[in-house]
Amino acid sequence: MIIIGEKINGSIPSMAKAIAERNEEWIKDVAKKQADAGADYIDCCASVEEGEVETLHWMIDLIQSVTDTPIAVDSPNAKVCIEGMKFCKRPGMINSVSGEGDKMDVVFPVIADTKWDVMALLCDDTGIPKTAEDRIRVLDNIMAKAKEYGIAESRIHIDPLIEMLCTAEDGIAMVREVMRYIKEHYPKAHISGAISNISFNLPYRKIVNIAFACLAIDAGMDSAVMDPLSRDLRGAIYAAEALIGEDYMCMEYISNFRDGIFGPQQ
Amino acid sequence: MIIIGEKINGSIPSMAKAIAERNEEWIKDVAKKQADAGADYIDCCASVEEGEVETLHWMIDLIQSVTDTPIAVDSPNAKVCIEGMKFCKRPGMINSVSGEGDKMDVVFPVIADTKWDVMALLCDDTGIPKTAEDRIRVLDNIMAKAKEYGIAESRIHIDPLIEMLCTAEDGIAMVREVMRYIKEHYPKAHISGAISNISFNLPYRKIVNIAFACLAIDAGMDSAVMDPLSRDLRGAIYAAEALIGEDYMCMEYISNFRDGIFGPQQ
Repeated sequence: MIIIGEKINGSIPSMAKAIAERNEEWIKDVAKKQADAGADYIDCCASVEEGEVETLHWMIDLIQSVTDTPIAVDSPNAKVCIEGMKFCKRPGMINSVSGEGDKMDVVFPVIADTKWDVMALLCDDTGIPKTAEDRIRVLDNIMAKAKEYGIAESRIHIDPLIEMLCTAEDGIAMVREVMRYIKEHYPKAHISGAISNISFNLPYRKIVNIAFACLAIDAGMDSAVMDPLSRDLRGAIYAAEALIGEDYMCMEYISNFRDGIFGPQQ
Repeated sequence: MIIIGEKINGSIPSMAKAIAERNEEWIKDVAKKQADAGADYIDCCASVEEGEVETLHWMIDLIQSVTDTPIAVDSPNAKVCIEGMKFCKRPGMINSVSGEGDKMDVVFPVIADTKWDVMALLCDDTGIPKTAEDRIRVLDNIMAKAKEYGIAESRIHIDPLIEMLCTAEDGIAMVREVMRYIKEHYPKAHISGAISNISFNLPYRKIVNIAFACLAIDAGMDSAVMDPLSRDLRGAIYAAEALIGEDYMCMEYISNFRDGIFGPQQ
């Protein structure tokens, strides 16, 4: 599982406060904790109304002052993502493109000949498609465009768009259908998404996130925007990987337990 | 999910001690707690070398003194199960038959015209089959025999035999194959098993049990021998049922949370 640490995001109230107050220690601490917990990327989203590029620059510098973990430059504005790339010392991830507007044409040529990965959301100018068929249409468009630019499938993390379970009429059937399609048609692409979206508006979100992660891993998910410090979620991910036969003799599960990534806290 | 509370079993050291010391309060307390937590059956297994029927009688009386929850009479000896039935005030479950020896011929005629359910283990005189094909062969034999005796599919809980993950080479692929076969060929039968067997010899067993339960529910499991007091496991079961589309608008999940079955403890 490729873990994109979600905690440095201005849409989280405590982080918005830290950004507004230019609380450098807070942001550095959150970056370091996620890196120490084994995040593969540290997501960095300013979520400010003005001065987004400058704010991102300041945040990226802070993250890079405490860890070498690559950064996922996160903005709804693709041009801001491209600006943010320039402040990064090493290749990371653009979070994100989608079928909306000219996002792909802004991002793909810039990352084509680099080692940057990219998150691709399966929505377009019509919004978030309601059916698997329509999300797959967006997916096929994105993958075709990436191919034109020579971007390898393995550099693309596809977010099928995980929506809240509490208003779903058939559970996660639709998202799993999209995941299975990705696995079959673009086997080298990563299947990703924001795990905790599933549990919006439900009590005890933690256990819904865990149950979803298990079923999503079974459907092919191998990348996730998540809190790397959620110890039980981390344990469940290693357990699910072992259960589907991707962890011979549970060696990863056991070694991550021994490293203190999950299990009872000391 | 039909929950068969597993805690009154003489193979558990603390329960073995309570049985040996004839500690009535201990057994009554464990029975009541499982019933209060919503167990559908209270399993009752003496696991003693001598006087099994008398011990079962004493234990069943204790359980029935504190709850009306039906009892799963549990012994490796089918004749003992049949004796134990007689002490029960209401129909429960025989735990268990299998393809071994004359177990089915001992149990099936006695329960045929009753409302008793039965647990059927997919092993026979050759032991625990190593392949899905061989377990399915045992299954088909058991279901054919049950049909001869006029026992409805819906009264049979099939335990495909959950074995420890830590020595499995392909995770739970084989058990899931058996579960899917049951679901397809005997859609009214219950798919059951002892969840915690999966995590033998692994650290932090709780999270392995949870991850397994989610994948097993997805494969059709709707009955389980488990600890009804495992709060996170209970929550994960309701979450998994919602995720696979079997809990409209998460109403069961939410109402069980409100009833205090899972979630942070007060």
